[in-house]
Amino acid sequence: MADVASPALRDLVARRRRGYMLERDFYTDPDVFRADLEYIFNRHWIFVGVEPDVPEPGDVMTLKIGDNDILICRDDDGAIHAMHNVCRHRAARLVSTEKATVGRLVCPYHAWTYGLDGALVHAEHMGEDFDHSCHGLKKIHLRSLEGLLFVCLAEEPPADFDEMARIVGPYIAPHEIANCKVAQQIDLIEEGNWKLTMENNRECYHCALNHPELTTSIFEFGFGFDAREDDPARAALRRNYDDMVAQSCSAWAASGFPSEEIGHLDDMVSGFRIGRMPMDRDGESQTLDTKVASRRLLGQAKEKRLGDLSFHTQPNSWHHFMSDHIVTFSVLPLSPDRTLLRTKWLVHRDAIQGVDYDLENLIRVWRETNLQDGALVGLAQAGASGAGYVPGPYSAETEGQVEAFANWYVRRMAAHLGIEPAR
Amino acid sequence: MADVASPALRDLVARRRRGYMLERDFYTDPDVFRADLEYIFNRHWIFVGVEPDVPEPGDVMTLKIGDNDILICRDDDGAIHAMHNVCRHRAARLVSTEKATVGRLVCPYHAWTYGLDGALVHAEHMGEDFDHSCHGLKKIHLRSLEGLLFVCLAEEPPADFDEMARIVGPYIAPHEIANCKVAQQIDLIEEGNWKLTMENNRECYHCALNHPELTTSIFEFGFGFDAREDDPARAALRRNYDDMVAQSCSAWAASGFPSEEIGHLDDMVSGFRIGRMPMDRDGESQTLDTKVASRRLLGQAKEKRLGDLSFHTQPNSWHHFMSDHIVTFSVLPLSPDRTLLRTKWLVHRDAIQGVDYDLENLIRVWRETNLQDGALVGLAQAGASGAGYVPGPYSAETEGQVEAFANWYVRRMAAHLGIEPAR
Amino acid sequence: MADVASPALRDLVARRRRGYMLERDFYTDPDVFRADLEYIFNRHWIFVGVEPDVPEPGDVMTLKIGDNDILICRDDDGAIHAMHNVCRHRAARLVSTEKATVGRLVCPYHAWTYGLDGALVHAEHMGEDFDHSCHGLKKIHLRSLEGLLFVCLAEEPPADFDEMARIVGPYIAPHEIANCKVAQQIDLIEEGNWKLTMENNRECYHCALNHPELTTSIFEFGFGFDAREDDPARAALRRNYDDMVAQSCSAWAASGFPSEEIGHLDDMVSGFRIGRMPMDRDGESQTLDTKVASRRLLGQAKEKRLGDLSFHTQPNSWHHFMSDHIVTFSVLPLSPDRTLLRTKWLVHRDAIQGVDYDLENLIRVWRETNLQDGALVGLAQAGASGAGYVPGPYSAETEGQVEAFANWYVRRMAAHLGIEPAR
Repeated sequence: MADVASPALRDLVARRRRGYMLERDFYTDPDVFRADLEYIFNRHWIFVGVEPDVPEPGDVMTLKIGDNDILICRDDDGAIHAMHNVCRHRAARLVSTEKATVGRLVCPYHAWTYGLDGALVHAEHMGEDFDHSCHGLKKIHLRSLEGLLFVCLAEEPPADFDEMARIVGPYIAPHEIANCKVAQQIDLIEEGNWKLTMENNRECYHCALNHPELTTSIFEFGFGFDAREDDPARAALRRNYDDMVAQSCSAWAASGFPSEEIGHLDDMVSGFRIGRMPMDRDGESQTLDTKVASRRLLGQAKEKRLGDLSFHTQPNSWHHFMSDHIVTFSVLPLSPDRTLLRTKWLVHRDAIQGVDYDLENLIRVWRETNLQDGALVGLAQAGASGAGYVPGPYSAETEGQVEAFANWYVRRMAAHLGIEPAR
Repeated sequence: MADVASPALRDLVARRRRGYMLERDFYTDPDVFRADLEYIFNRHWIFVGVEPDVPEPGDVMTLKIGDNDILICRDDDGAIHAMHNVCRHRAARLVSTEKATVGRLVCPYHAWTYGLDGALVHAEHMGEDFDHSCHGLKKIHLRSLEGLLFVCLAEEPPADFDEMARIVGPYIAPHEIANCKVAQQIDLIEEGNWKLTMENNRECYHCALNHPELTTSIFEFGFGFDAREDDPARAALRRNYDDMVAQSCSAWAASGFPSEEIGHLDDMVSGFRIGRMPMDRDGESQTLDTKVASRRLLGQAKEKRLGDLSFHTQPNSWHHFMSDHIVTFSVLPLSPDRTLLRTKWLVHRDAIQGVDYDLENLIRVWRETNLQDGALVGLAQAGASGAGYVPGPYSAETEGQVEAFANWYVRRMAAHLGIEPAR
Repeated sequence: MADVASPALRDLVARRRRGYMLERDFYTDPDVFRADLEYIFNRHWIFVGVEPDVPEPGDVMTLKIGDNDILICRDDDGAIHAMHNVCRHRAARLVSTEKATVGRLVCPYHAWTYGLDGALVHAEHMGEDFDHSCHGLKKIHLRSLEGLLFVCLAEEPPADFDEMARIVGPYIAPHEIANCKVAQQIDLIEEGNWKLTMENNRECYHCALNHPELTTSIFEFGFGFDAREDDPARAALRRNYDDMVAQSCSAWAASGFPSEEIGHLDDMVSGFRIGRMPMDRDGESQTLDTKVASRRLLGQAKEKRLGDLSFHTQPNSWHHFMSDHIVTFSVLPLSPDRTLLRTKWLVHRDAIQGVDYDLENLIRVWRETNLQDGALVGLAQAGASGAGYVPGPYSAETEGQVEAFANWYVRRMAAHLGIEPAR
């Protein structure tokens, strides 16, 4: 019954020190967690899934964002709606499975019946004065960004989603998500605060030591480094890399696949970053042998070597688009020290498992990488929970996007608390 | 260490809207849960069991109401006592099993020894100045309502229990609970707030969709309906039903079994409702074939078709009395979102399992009905916990007793908080 | 984010009634638990292990005290250090196993590398301005009391540890802990508050009823009794016992094993009690047959019958030293109602399992005794958590050390809260 905007929280946000990790309470305190849900997850655009999650009319997907039990379904006209998954009569959850296909939404308690657009169409015993039109399911804002589904629980969602969509739409559109299917979904519960999951995603300083599968296809130079630590041989390698990136991006852009990096991670409410990078070892895709996992290329792709288009959004997602498959990641907080990482692997909807793609080969790199990252997040949570924790410095060379995430987070908290953003 | 009567709780109680479900915090907030224990379960008469739970001298039953570990035992003179189940020396719980038979109550820690009335009779090493009479077990008020055991943890229990007992005693007495035995007890933990368990019990709007076993023997007209939805055939059926109820009740009353419905669900502190209804399909008892489950009829019953005497009490019980068996239900809160439903099936103490009754046949209807209700309570808790929950309207036709429960609860909270009851 | 020194806590401490158990909140309230960690476990010398836990350079032991993840290791010069087990960069826990042997401490996240003394020796990508010397692991005070390891998390540890060490050093030294090995460690989680674990340890009033193994070798007169309850035969036995204690202690002292009881349980910040007692049945050791468990005697012991040197410290340890083995006990709070009791059995480092000692015979008495005590602590927690709990009186004859523990605890809380100690 308490207010989330406590003086202690205001102080905590106001005294944040730039260039350093956040203080302990940000990762452990139940009150901060409630504020995270209230100010971040209930008021921004949250990535929750893809159009292929509900490919046909009547298809339903459910999920939770904090306390919000959410139902997403496609109606008979093909439109996708998001609604609160709770009956307007006696509060029963309408759909309890993650996926379902229905004609109408019938409450299991007293059979109140709703259409796929949430309108109440039948309720027994309620008398003549009862107004059905006042008892439809509560709607939630939903946007499809070229097939990526975002919801916003606020009454007035951040307006700059349109600006983000305008910029990144041309990057994503040629991969044609609507023509994909979800080949696999894996839910991993990480034993750490959701911000540690995000911070972990926003740097590759830890990759060399921890991700043998992932580093097969990604270039070590792609994520920052300290040039002063280079020897001449390494410096030459790096110059070659820079040239190759420039050439590849030009070629891809010319064939209809924009690739130039654009970043607004901490200067927009709907913060994001997008850009396409070549792969190491003449790589085609994020697989162990760096070859495509699926023979059916996506959308307008004509060649296998389309690099890796990575798209990051604040506060909760990242995505990799390749010529043959897409991997999307959605981060959903469960408690101060537990976070759901939901990963979906998409291939062409006509690709046949065992013929066009081998599922194990498709998912192996990111399944293993996620497990490795989950263990690291657990170690960071263990350490950050301790009285001996001191926020450490970020590397200016390799942890700039971690800092950008922390900046974005603190600015958004400050904005909702009505205080000066930390400098 | 905090006070339960917070301003937030007062506001919540004061702003309750009649005719609608309670607000979310009532079902989820830990502070409201503490207040429920303090104001409702610690200050009213709570149904906990039956005399046949402790049939012989030395028989002990234990249970928990919130934080209170309670011991009920029958002494050598046959009197039944309720006491706190905690040693007066170093706090050890005296009896850790649910049922036991003892000569005296000996503490397992340092062997302090109490009589069956709770008096301390022996304690070693305590010196000459030690006064045994000051260290007996703390007593708890206990009343047997014709064999139904109620306890009250308050120093001054609600006085109108006597009024309730005066009214309902003649209904219950002829079933002679003291001559029964507990044939079966099942403890079901429902994943919902105790008030959702109670609300679920107080209507049958959900029965047709959810309770195939129970609706075999109960009349669909017995729990309210919207007459305006009737077609002529159904209206005729209902008139027949009304005539049959009137005739049956007259006949039962003439044979010593009062049957007329009397309800004080929300206008007494010890709120209750009692009444006897005939069964469908010429039914005798709540079994799948609607025939008696036990050949040994109870008490003064001469005929099998005695209908179903249902007795409801606020805040935590309901009971069904038939010619051959009795089913009692006790609701005990465990946490904001978990509730224990304890069900006991009673038959004549001389009835022999496998000869006079088949246990599976005896318990099947209510075991299944409870499981079905438990699932519904879980769905309601899931929905009511969500940010998308809006308290819905009760049906005036079928949910009047749900409204009466909510009224009673809010009034009692208001009384203990010293505020105006909600209108 | 809250302050632990609430008015409610001050009242609770201030109104403590001497001679009686503590009030319920002391055993159950999360705020009191936080204060226990802050004022007791973070500001006093806490027993955590023994030098043989880290016998060689590079050996590491980890443990938790409340929120503090602690790493203890022996460096290449043989010095033992205690440090917070958390990387100064991105908070990862450095060592996740309870024991390890390492060359350097390498963080698994980004490979920051520390020496065994905690100094940061390598960190990649941090730029030229980065000062390694400011980013060493945070140190924790550590003292070895003749081989018993104590840590203190406060910046300024209690100074009277030196006084305690001066007094008890001569008792412990001849047992030569540094020449022992840890033959067995057992971690038992007791379902009770840590203070109930301590109170249980500080009396033997409960032994006769609960500890058949332990009472084989300990004298019933050694822990207090009410002389007025003696009959003449028992009084004579007691006089014999008193004579034997005096003679034994003189003889042991003469052979270099001080034995006289010295107690400062509640009049020093580093409260303790030490003393040696003979064993019953001409006993040599705490085993089922009262004979030594290990043929290799410890340190300067020349004879098997050296009695039992017991050493108790506030707030969290006790120890038994015999001619052939040592048992140490460390109490670590996990939550208001869960406590870790960590027991280590030490024998001579050259003793060979199966030849010089049988492991089952070595550990049986205290393994069983701990389990019995753990069950009693669970019963006391269950009782003390209830609304029916009333703090009971301690026996002046047998529970003086329980009272001393409660006195010490309340005085220390009062001192840190800046209020008058309870009288």
